[in-house]
Amino acid sequence: MNNYLAVVEYDGTNYKGFQSQPGNTRTIQGELLKSLATLTGPISGFGYAGRTDAGVHARHQVINFKTDSELDLYRFKWKMNCILPVDIVIRTIKKVHPDFDSRRDARIRQYAYYIVNNNYQSVFWKKYSLLVTGKLDIAAMREAAGKFIGVKDFTTFCSDNLHQSFNMREVYSCSLGKHRDGLLIFKISANSFLYNMVRIITGTLLEVGRGKRNPESISSSLEGRNRKLAGKIVPPMGLFLTDVVY
Amino acid sequence: MNNYLAVVEYDGTNYKGFQSQPGNTRTIQGELLKSLATLTGPISGFGYAGRTDAGVHARHQVINFKTDSELDLYRFKWKMNCILPVDIVIRTIKKVHPDFDSRRDARIRQYAYYIVNNNYQSVFWKKYSLLVTGKLDIAAMREAAGKFIGVKDFTTFCSDNLHQSFNMREVYSCSLGKHRDGLLIFKISANSFLYNMVRIITGTLLEVGRGKRNPESISSSLEGRNRKLAGKIVPPMGLFLTDVVY
Repeated sequence: MNNYLAVVEYDGTNYKGFQSQPGNTRTIQGELLKSLATLTGPISGFGYAGRTDAGVHARHQVINFKTDSELDLYRFKWKMNCILPVDIVIRTIKKVHPDFDSRRDARIRQYAYYIVNNNYQSVFWKKYSLLVTGKLDIAAMREAAGKFIGVKDFTTFCSDNLHQSFNMREVYSCSLGKHRDGLLIFKISANSFLYNMVRIITGTLLEVGRGKRNPESISSSLEGRNRKLAGKIVPPMGLFLTDVVY
Repeated sequence: MNNYLAVVEYDGTNYKGFQSQPGNTRTIQGELLKSLATLTGPISGFGYAGRTDAGVHARHQVINFKTDSELDLYRFKWKMNCILPVDIVIRTIKKVHPDFDSRRDARIRQYAYYIVNNNYQSVFWKKYSLLVTGKLDIAAMREAAGKFIGVKDFTTFCSDNLHQSFNMREVYSCSLGKHRDGLLIFKISANSFLYNMVRIITGTLLEVGRGKRNPESISSSLEGRNRKLAGKIVPPMGLFLTDVVY
């Protein structure tokens, strides 16, 4: 059995998230499996590093799949990119150890959330960012971002508290970059993330930026272990899975 | 009579260029005039800095228009952006001297051409760049780019040699930036440009990058004053008007 790793990029706008769903729901995984089956025959194992939600994009999602076929990697990638929908593309592909698991073996996942802080909606950024009009206190947002770094219980910053029991995660980096034309890029990396965690953290940082809460409140919000102590969730179109490290 | 300057951004994909054309041809100018007429009543003068072609984009196009109306600038911009098509947006607007002319008074125009040098087509860049597979000699391209700087006759690098008699232009800067994921950004600024000049120069640089011509050939191509001495024109979707300086 051969095990292959592929780095996949996609525009999530027109998909109901990465993970396959029953029925005719359009998902990234569903499209990948369909194209794989066409080219390789039956797949006996399929894994992925990040379960991105509906409308979330990826610059660097990592999948792995197992097949009896021995693939000519250059040709295979070319063919996959011919039959995949226009908004999904295989960036790279390589053969890996039979035991490699793209989800379990991922050590670091990195996401970026794009915010445009301006008084007009850029025609190029509108599908890939959240427009925030009005002044933001960037220094306060950066101070607040720093509070998320470390091994912490992120129950407050998770949408689903019914099915998760272990909500400890380690955040390695959490920062806000300021670029020209009002573009703000929030980057966060962790061993793994809870459901909606990046989007709830981003929404909470925006409340700090607007002066609705202060940076110190983050620590007590974390300690309270209650979703109500965090800010509103931001929409999915600004979120990108940007890297996975093994 | 009031004279207003506006900075406009647009995605040129679905337009037959900036300049108005007879009939129902969809142009950026046509859409701007339609929206302006709705909000200000009759326009008595309209100018623009760069006549971008069909499919070419702009991050920073400058227009000016004259009207008897006294505009509340904040509200006017907001309303314009509500009624303009989704792929055109007013970035800023201000009142200027009655004599200001956005075309005549422009001292520097800057364009950027985006090339992705990789073996897959990024889903995010495909509408806004040219995919070039195969290795490019970046050092040779940079050396060639330097040959365009200065006051020169650009007849060789112009599609229309019938209607232009004065083809001297001054190129102030001409450079190729290399970024991650194979992204190359070619930037050029000049007092003004001939028809298709940036796209023909870019195509010629790509021939240098592929080893089909050497950097020294640029000087003799310029001296020859003949379109046949330049490379092939590249498609419009990678081209952006990025700045106009007064």
